[in-house]
Amino acid sequence: MHDSLKDFKSVLEISLAWGEMDAAQHINNAVYLRYGETGRIAYLQKLGLDFDLKGKGVVLAEVNCKYKFPLTFPDKIWIGTRALLDTLDEFGFWTEQVIVSHRYQKISTVIRSKLVYYDFVNLKKTPLTQNNHDKVIRFEKT
Amino acid sequence: MHDSLKDFKSVLEISLAWGEMDAAQHINNAVYLRYGETGRIAYLQKLGLDFDLKGKGVVLAEVNCKYKFPLTFPDKIWIGTRALLDTLDEFGFWTEQVIVSHRYQKISTVIRSKLVYYDFVNLKKTPLTQNNHDKVIRFEKT
Amino acid sequence: MHDSLKDFKSVLEISLAWGEMDAAQHINNAVYLRYGETGRIAYLQKLGLDFDLKGKGVVLAEVNCKYKFPLTFPDKIWIGTRALLDTLDEFGFWTEQVIVSHRYQKISTVIRSKLVYYDFVNLKKTPLTQNNHDKVIRFEKT
Amino acid sequence: MHDSLKDFKSVLEISLAWGEMDAAQHINNAVYLRYGETGRIAYLQKLGLDFDLKGKGVVLAEVNCKYKFPLTFPDKIWIGTRALLDTLDEFGFWTEQVIVSHRYQKISTVIRSKLVYYDFVNLKKTPLTQNNHDKVIRFEKT
Repeated sequence: MHDSLKDFKSVLEISLAWGEMDAAQHINNAVYLRYGETGRIAYLQKLGLDFDLKGKGVVLAEVNCKYKFPLTFPDKIWIGTRALLDTLDEFGFWTEQVIVSHRYQKISTVIRSKLVYYDFVNLKKTPLTQNNHDKVIRFEKT
Repeated sequence: MHDSLKDFKSVLEISLAWGEMDAAQHINNAVYLRYGETGRIAYLQKLGLDFDLKGKGVVLAEVNCKYKFPLTFPDKIWIGTRALLDTLDEFGFWTEQVIVSHRYQKISTVIRSKLVYYDFVNLKKTPLTQNNHDKVIRFEKT
Repeated sequence: MHDSLKDFKSVLEISLAWGEMDAAQHINNAVYLRYGETGRIAYLQKLGLDFDLKGKGVVLAEVNCKYKFPLTFPDKIWIGTRALLDTLDEFGFWTEQVIVSHRYQKISTVIRSKLVYYDFVNLKKTPLTQNNHDKVIRFEKT
Repeated sequence: MHDSLKDFKSVLEISLAWGEMDAAQHINNAVYLRYGETGRIAYLQKLGLDFDLKGKGVVLAEVNCKYKFPLTFPDKIWIGTRALLDTLDEFGFWTEQVIVSHRYQKISTVIRSKLVYYDFVNLKKTPLTQNNHDKVIRFEKT
């Protein structure tokens, strides 16, 4: 695996689809957010964060995506996801993700996402809970 | 509006998006199914068919799509949707849809879809109900 | 692998993405066409069919999709693709595809697609060529 | 139109599609980037920026998306797009976009995008040209 992934405990492999390219013959910019979402869900499941669409779970409050070089089909990517512990607060945390091309063996995209714990019943943000807070720290530190 | 739409009581206009084109620089084949879905939902709402994701509603059991000429951005389409009354049975009916390009003033795609009434709680097909049956006939015949 | 795939020489594995589900909490109907496209491209590459977006290649003229049971995340699918040799004619052939869920070990969807050889420069269908014709038969028969 | 759009000379209306919602029953986060892309293309066409996929044109180098409240079907949005003139430099500029819900009459999302002029033949960034530079300023100032 690529060096840039060595600090990520959650790394997912995704095969690119031809139909994800747009008329510029690159993977369409919006599709990288799909990859990021897929990577974050794998991360949160691995971490064991409590998530229930009829109760509480994280939502995406902000995302920042830096496109370094464009992906093309055929290729596979590794997507590494980690929490940035210095951003962890009462309501959530930021994750950082790198998307690495197998073919080019370099970082295509860096995504930072602000995750906020949310109460799907009362439709407002809610504290992350001590349990989830601990899980994030334990996952990243061990 | 185009002549081929004159027998459709439900006609929706959709603007194509650049990002819906693929690397062949045409609207991607899967996207036509999205247009079809959007058109059928508009049709079913206009008709007033009872639909509740926590109760009963129609699901798509089969779809057939004939691609006559490829759409490209920029363009707008009209999508006409109608029930084929001779297919109406206890559990559902087929719809027929035509997608007409504004720019080329001709039919790009013809979609036929088999809709089946479904019980989302017990996860199985269920009779359409007399009320829905009557609504479909009334909508198409008046 | 599942029994229903035993007659398919091209079988691709795809991981479903959470974001491919729609508000009915199933993989969205249009997404199955994306899976089908991805499977057909893998098939055509394996077969070695001549394809050049600036020359000649196959296009999709018609697709039929039968939805047997809905896929949900998380799951993986196998998608088997084969040419139906009795449909092979001067301009193309139909493929048949089955989508099999790992989790449920049964067929979710059957897709039939009419592929037509197309001249991307002169924008019209064109004979498949003897070479491509032979490749399809050789691939399926050996 | 909504007050927050009064400083945008390019405002596009988009109808949301049911199928753009995900299993959380909101418009999927990645889809907002599609809306943003569609809005920027409308903006660049109105502006008259030189764009040729076989020559030079803008590409997206970075995007930041702040989700304020989630959109749901059925709804329409206005998407306003403008260049941030204080970011205009030799190679490009940032745009700012607001997505406003018709139904809720408030801002759902704010997107900032870094556009860089790019040479599609030599695959590297290239100066924006004086002509394009002037067009951006003229469009925003008059």
